[in-house]
Amino acid sequence: MDATEQSLRQSLSEKSSSVESQGNAVRALKASRAAKPEIDAAIDLLNKLKLEKSTVEKQLQSIITSSGNGSLNREAFRQAVVNTLERRLFYIPSFKIYRGVAGLFDYGPPGCAVKSNVLSFWRQHFILEENMLEVDCPCVTPEVVLKASGHVDKFTDLMVKDEKTGTCYRADHLLKDYCTDKVEKDLTISADKAAEFKDVLAVMEDYSPEELGAKLKEYGITAPDTKNPLSDPYPFNLMFQTSIGPSGLIPGYMRPETAQGIFVNFKDLYYYNGRKLPFAAAQIGQAFRNEISPRQGLLRVREFTLAEIEHFVDPENKSHPKFPDVSKLEFLMFPREEQMSGQSAKKLCIGEAVAKGTVNNETLGYFIGRVYLFLTRLGIDKERLRFRQHLANEMAHYAADCWDAEIESSYGWIECVGIADRSAYDLRAHSEKSGVALVAEEKYAEPKEVEKLVINPVKKELGLAFKGNQKNVVESLEAMNEKEAMEMKASLESKGEVEFYVCTLEKNVIIKKNMVSISKEKKKEHRRVFTPSVIEPSFGIGRIIYCLYEHCFSTRPSKAGDEQLNVFRFPPLVAPIKCTVFPLVQNQQFEEATKVISKELTSVGISHKIDITGTSIGKRYARTDELGVPFAITVDSDTSVTIRERDSKDQVRVSLEEAASVVSSVAEGKMTWQDVWARFPHHSSAAADE
Amino acid sequence: MDATEQSLRQSLSEKSSSVESQGNAVRALKASRAAKPEIDAAIDLLNKLKLEKSTVEKQLQSIITSSGNGSLNREAFRQAVVNTLERRLFYIPSFKIYRGVAGLFDYGPPGCAVKSNVLSFWRQHFILEENMLEVDCPCVTPEVVLKASGHVDKFTDLMVKDEKTGTCYRADHLLKDYCTDKVEKDLTISADKAAEFKDVLAVMEDYSPEELGAKLKEYGITAPDTKNPLSDPYPFNLMFQTSIGPSGLIPGYMRPETAQGIFVNFKDLYYYNGRKLPFAAAQIGQAFRNEISPRQGLLRVREFTLAEIEHFVDPENKSHPKFPDVSKLEFLMFPREEQMSGQSAKKLCIGEAVAKGTVNNETLGYFIGRVYLFLTRLGIDKERLRFRQHLANEMAHYAADCWDAEIESSYGWIECVGIADRSAYDLRAHSEKSGVALVAEEKYAEPKEVEKLVINPVKKELGLAFKGNQKNVVESLEAMNEKEAMEMKASLESKGEVEFYVCTLEKNVIIKKNMVSISKEKKKEHRRVFTPSVIEPSFGIGRIIYCLYEHCFSTRPSKAGDEQLNVFRFPPLVAPIKCTVFPLVQNQQFEEATKVISKELTSVGISHKIDITGTSIGKRYARTDELGVPFAITVDSDTSVTIRERDSKDQVRVSLEEAASVVSSVAEGKMTWQDVWARFPHHSSAAADE
Repeated sequence: MDATEQSLRQSLSEKSSSVESQGNAVRALKASRAAKPEIDAAIDLLNKLKLEKSTVEKQLQSIITSSGNGSLNREAFRQAVVNTLERRLFYIPSFKIYRGVAGLFDYGPPGCAVKSNVLSFWRQHFILEENMLEVDCPCVTPEVVLKASGHVDKFTDLMVKDEKTGTCYRADHLLKDYCTDKVEKDLTISADKAAEFKDVLAVMEDYSPEELGAKLKEYGITAPDTKNPLSDPYPFNLMFQTSIGPSGLIPGYMRPETAQGIFVNFKDLYYYNGRKLPFAAAQIGQAFRNEISPRQGLLRVREFTLAEIEHFVDPENKSHPKFPDVSKLEFLMFPREEQMSGQSAKKLCIGEAVAKGTVNNETLGYFIGRVYLFLTRLGIDKERLRFRQHLANEMAHYAADCWDAEIESSYGWIECVGIADRSAYDLRAHSEKSGVALVAEEKYAEPKEVEKLVINPVKKELGLAFKGNQKNVVESLEAMNEKEAMEMKASLESKGEVEFYVCTLEKNVIIKKNMVSISKEKKKEHRRVFTPSVIEPSFGIGRIIYCLYEHCFSTRPSKAGDEQLNVFRFPPLVAPIKCTVFPLVQNQQFEEATKVISKELTSVGISHKIDITGTSIGKRYARTDELGVPFAITVDSDTSVTIRERDSKDQVRVSLEEAASVVSSVAEGKMTWQDVWARFPHHSSAAADE
Repeated sequence: MDATEQSLRQSLSEKSSSVESQGNAVRALKASRAAKPEIDAAIDLLNKLKLEKSTVEKQLQSIITSSGNGSLNREAFRQAVVNTLERRLFYIPSFKIYRGVAGLFDYGPPGCAVKSNVLSFWRQHFILEENMLEVDCPCVTPEVVLKASGHVDKFTDLMVKDEKTGTCYRADHLLKDYCTDKVEKDLTISADKAAEFKDVLAVMEDYSPEELGAKLKEYGITAPDTKNPLSDPYPFNLMFQTSIGPSGLIPGYMRPETAQGIFVNFKDLYYYNGRKLPFAAAQIGQAFRNEISPRQGLLRVREFTLAEIEHFVDPENKSHPKFPDVSKLEFLMFPREEQMSGQSAKKLCIGEAVAKGTVNNETLGYFIGRVYLFLTRLGIDKERLRFRQHLANEMAHYAADCWDAEIESSYGWIECVGIADRSAYDLRAHSEKSGVALVAEEKYAEPKEVEKLVINPVKKELGLAFKGNQKNVVESLEAMNEKEAMEMKASLESKGEVEFYVCTLEKNVIIKKNMVSISKEKKKEHRRVFTPSVIEPSFGIGRIIYCLYEHCFSTRPSKAGDEQLNVFRFPPLVAPIKCTVFPLVQNQQFEEATKVISKELTSVGISHKIDITGTSIGKRYARTDELGVPFAITVDSDTSVTIRERDSKDQVRVSLEEAASVVSSVAEGKMTWQDVWARFPHHSSAAADE
């Protein structure tokens, strides 16, 4: 049964990536917008793909319907996972007794334990193994910091309001839902119309508020709940605003990311690191985004835990000494080219991807490799994990390269980790706004003699000649590169004056010899001062955990075959509890033995639960499987016990004294279950118990 | 030198607790306000104590001044600690490059490591060892929750504004500063006046806004910075306010504590625990208080980490099965009686304190004991830790008993953990507001037959007789206790009517036989439904860490005697790094050996740093001492190394292979340094290195 399910799941995954490749075609279309002539051909292609998609979807539906073995389609699968998670308190909608608040969730006891395990492993895998400098900054952040970072001005979504009730909607969601509905469900529309809607879907992410508003009007889109008219779209800032101190005069926000706390501390951290590059700082903490209308359950929430790394590096040397440690790794990568040409993700070797320039540099490649190791060790299925490169129009203008670790879930491919080379943008922005130089320096072994271009505009003369335009002329003169400047110098010397184009004035002016002095000076330099580049791997911890739940969830029939039992196949590393201890029946002898084992488990640091309820061992196993507990010790004598492994349901007999150390070895990965299976006698009545 | 310093510090501590006992007299005075006749005598006593205080202070000053050995007074001591902490990036004022924001601090790398160690140990000591249910709720909290908890209405400080500039001040701080200044520095005031100011200091915490405003006016107190007139005091809510969602219609706050997240989840957690009491839930997370004017550095901040436990218990049975584990512990306790009678804290055995009723119940006593163990294992000096009971006027009306773990620091005795029996208050408040019953039940082994009083007012008759007063009469009738009701029944049966006092009407009315039926009915009850009591230990993690820094900080002279070196004597449990590894000189042989050791330390999970700078070993030890690293391995051969212990500066020689496991054993407490010292040859040239 497991195998059938497995194969169906795989099939689902393949179909989905086929559907996904159409999304890529859409992205490709967006990226090729500039080349208008190609757009019609592209739309044709898209139409064909859409048709194929609908065929694929029908096939998919038929596979699901025809398979009578209890396997689940995506929606139903998600519902099964979410029901189990909520019933066993992995999570709880926050403030439930007050009917909750959209986009806010609590972690209950097993959820907390999983989160704590994930964060411990993150700290081990990144901070400790890479000697990163951890910081912990407040969530409350004054406006000036987020003004410098660009969040105050640009961290927005476009919103429309129901003009009568005031209910708010994300403008792009309404347009997207409308067009998708038309394309997928309205059989009356013409091929031309269908093509138009598809075009809109392809390019809408780049719409200005005005363009988006015009489309909403054109299609007569109204408020979904009331059919009332909508306001024009306007940007809504996604930060939670507050005010610091009692006067109301210091505006502040709840941070939308943890990264800014690291950037503003760059100078101190650089000194702490002995003024050496590269080094990385890291932070784990809460971040806040006041989503307009949160969807997708645990994936799009208003408060979440981020773990972010800012790796500071010399822009002229982005090599990484430990790159060879990961360079042989192979995993699914989805470079820009493949997305543009409608292909799907492929297994690539990260070493080759860097060598070929597909990945911009070694440091970026190193982190991609480390992220792959981190996620797969947690239990993310490597077949449902890919690294997708941002298309040119997805990246900020300053970014050198960006890759997202995307994990496939029932919601599709979900961005869980972003790994971006953000160049010097952030440090420069804070240097400018704060006036504190956030720079590093390289001392030369020997002083270097450098020739420097010196352009000195004579402001007095320029002022007399250009009055109010003087500033524009000065700036243009100072902005000349070496070639331009030396040509001007030659002309001025030979002719006494020269025509000069001032781009900010959009015209030529006449520059005379007395208006500027241009020279080259030789200087000895002892050091190079520069703004470091930053490579930022940023982890959405809640998203990773949710995807992990989906990847680890499975069902199997009960012994009687009358019901499906849920199992979370968590690796011991993340399992909320490593071991349960069951006295077979309640008597003093077994109780004493249970105490001995419990004490020893505590002393070797293995978290465990004792279940003394009188229900059958089979029921107790089922309960423990649903929490993802990998090992169970059943106490049925005072000299030896059985240890049962969750996934195989195999059981071995081990002496009372050895039980804790065997569980500890296999839970901590010092031994595999195969080793245990080979070493200890098998428990014959295993099957009878379940 | 260490000994001298130690003795001076102890002396400081004693003097301070003497001064402190006057504070207790002040508290006692406050508590005795109702008994006005006693107040004069009390003020006399206070005056005497104040005189003694000034003598004590002068002696203290003279001790400090006369001791020429570099020991430090409180202010200077604090400055030395804080300088070291800031220089080594234990903490950083947040957003420093933008001139910071009062009351917000970052943890830098060693600070993060200490915090992470403290929280891990907290999780181990409380959550794992006590099988608590951990939850993790959002910081963003809708108003309705904090309305129910009372925070929206009552979580305020009284504030005044400079009427011209708008600058805000805490009203009580201004009055306190004024009176303290008068009493301590103004030699011209009469004894009567002095007594008055002292009286104000004693009782001001209970002033209404009007009383406080009247005092400020009476004394002509103006804005400290400008001397401008002040506004009347008005309550300022200390929560950071925000708005959830885009409409602006869901007001919210950043939570001021984590406890409410647990209370609103009570029902789910009770089910999760198999509907059994007692159980405890716990949460670690950020909390926010928008202080009017933060003082006291790291102790009074606007954002901080709380770790809170809510232990739910049957109000009729507050025993604790594990109480015997702590009952023999002895530590400084400061019961209400001792504070009222001006005595100081005394060593008491917690078992006896519970037996005598000094501590209200076993569960409260158990947590006091566990908190004592937690704090002292972290490295808090047990002589500078006391448990102070709240006076009657400090406790909320619903609280059964409260004890604060107070730690002595350079700022005086600081409340770091509050341990309160809050009765059923919180669960009842949320039950009422949400309409969801937050209750537990006890199933009787056998159904119990109970006789129940049934009072049925006949509303029609009462309405005819009392018209608009009917409701008051009905409520008074229903509120009768059994004795009153049975007396009324008898009178009605014998006389047909009876006089009845309705307290809300403040008069007697005549109740006739037809207006009410009173009976006793027998019922079988299968279970008892009740609201659990909650016992809440609440830990201010940042305050504990700061006090730990002060308790672990010391100085010792350098070998040359020309400077004082700083040492943080952290226990290995909390030390930010457990071990440093120093190759004596830079060569390939030592580098290889260093790599071997580093790899082994990693494999046994010991965090460590390699210091390959070329400076002298002595300098490297000094650097490492200032971070509180307990062990250093110096690599001076490829077969054996030295291990040096920070506090004793003792060194032993250990083979290369054994080094990591020795450090690991002693860092994890499996072996003491004495064991190591006894087992391995001593390194003879130890002294020469420093």
